[in-house]
Amino acid sequence: MGKGDRALPFDDRGLSYGDGLFETILVRDGRPVLWNEHLARLEEGCRRLGLTMPSQATLASLLPQASPQAALSVLKVVLTRGSGGRGYRPPRPSICRLRFRLTPFTPDEARWRQGVRIRHCVLRLGIQPRLAGIKHLNRLENVLARDEWDDESIAEGVLCDSDGRLVEATSMNLFWLRHGRLETPRLERCGVAGTLRQALLTRLPIREVEVGPEVLKEVEALWLGNSVQGAWPVVALVNSDGTPGMTWTLNAAHRSLQDHAHRLLGYPLVHELRSLD
Amino acid sequence: MGKGDRALPFDDRGLSYGDGLFETILVRDGRPVLWNEHLARLEEGCRRLGLTMPSQATLASLLPQASPQAALSVLKVVLTRGSGGRGYRPPRPSICRLRFRLTPFTPDEARWRQGVRIRHCVLRLGIQPRLAGIKHLNRLENVLARDEWDDESIAEGVLCDSDGRLVEATSMNLFWLRHGRLETPRLERCGVAGTLRQALLTRLPIREVEVGPEVLKEVEALWLGNSVQGAWPVVALVNSDGTPGMTWTLNAAHRSLQDHAHRLLGYPLVHELRSLD
Repeated sequence: MGKGDRALPFDDRGLSYGDGLFETILVRDGRPVLWNEHLARLEEGCRRLGLTMPSQATLASLLPQASPQAALSVLKVVLTRGSGGRGYRPPRPSICRLRFRLTPFTPDEARWRQGVRIRHCVLRLGIQPRLAGIKHLNRLENVLARDEWDDESIAEGVLCDSDGRLVEATSMNLFWLRHGRLETPRLERCGVAGTLRQALLTRLPIREVEVGPEVLKEVEALWLGNSVQGAWPVVALVNSDGTPGMTWTLNAAHRSLQDHAHRLLGYPLVHELRSLD
Repeated sequence: MGKGDRALPFDDRGLSYGDGLFETILVRDGRPVLWNEHLARLEEGCRRLGLTMPSQATLASLLPQASPQAALSVLKVVLTRGSGGRGYRPPRPSICRLRFRLTPFTPDEARWRQGVRIRHCVLRLGIQPRLAGIKHLNRLENVLARDEWDDESIAEGVLCDSDGRLVEATSMNLFWLRHGRLETPRLERCGVAGTLRQALLTRLPIREVEVGPEVLKEVEALWLGNSVQGAWPVVALVNSDGTPGMTWTLNAAHRSLQDHAHRLLGYPLVHELRSLD
């Protein structure tokens, strides 16, 4: 295991069926950020799919091998069930394949500082508790959702499940402050449990809730976040038909979650961002 | 396009996101079986995902290139969105990748003749109309469902959707005769619309129905079918906990759909199979 970003054979089950997992890890000065959270999610994915979790030593060895050319980079790790099996039936035993690639990364500071405009997506996520939360390779729903808009001024899209409950954005988790309380959607039925979300849940009093998009009318602040981009305050949520929807003015409330997230990731805090203006 | 079964680069979106389609085509004496149905499904998949449909000439050229060593073989064709894009966002334009492999194939005649034992699966398919019917590369549900049993005497597993409606088996479609009428589950919400199913729908009075598994108690005959394996009569449907469920004795009714399917695929008819006993 550990063959860098070499090509995958035609019969790799990651390609044939999306039979595998991935992690996208922020690397700062050669050190992985939220490493324990990434390992825990990968392990949970392996448990659910019946894949062999690579050893910590194997995973840790990806970092020095891929020595950073930039202060910030992103390590993408892909673990597949390898080749074999009869059709969908997994081989016993399966010899998993591990691939990885390190890419220099520059976060979008303007989004931290000015906030982002986002939209509602038309696509509804299917409900599949067996795959909910883990970062598996079956991501066509995310691709189709992200393909709903071309407007460069729209940073992300909000997704509900087929029962109309709020879940996530196409590549980030949702957080909001409602009546003074931090909340985020439950992810037992679908969606990806981001590692930044996981780290924030253990450090802040965030309630996991099961609600429809109508609650967003009541929120004082809304953010998107993931472990690579950090936390983006939302200043506008456009309807899926492009018509204006809700708007928020950046306010003191926006500081709370963003600062917590950025401390975890080593990104600038709100007052440091202001001094850049 | 058309690079045989060469490896796929690490950043191919087929691997990263299951962002692509496949077809598995029975080839008899170098000629593809149900070719038009396979082309039509691939085209519908391209339309839904926004992929470029390869030309008929390109697809037809895969067959002579891959000259058959056996009278029967299976051609697997994989079409992905290629590399590129920013995260889930598809590249514009995208340069699709086409890969294929021809493998000798021997159908399981005993299953045609003696019928098969199958089981109910525990996993419920998520409801996703945007992906229903097409043969995309996001097949983790099928993998997990097929992984529910190890018993070699069980040939297939029956899947319901998250609302409890019958959909399909893990790699075949379902057909049954109820009160003298042929029926098959509707596939607007999930499942794969098999090419054999499609060909049978245009030739036989088969009703597409939206029903739960309880209707199977009323059926005179039950079959599984796909364009590679042909049609298998079902003699037993075991519960998901392994306890005995329903059973059927092979009867004259079983002949109807199986003979139609086998004429389409060039497989032996029921009376020819009997003469082999």
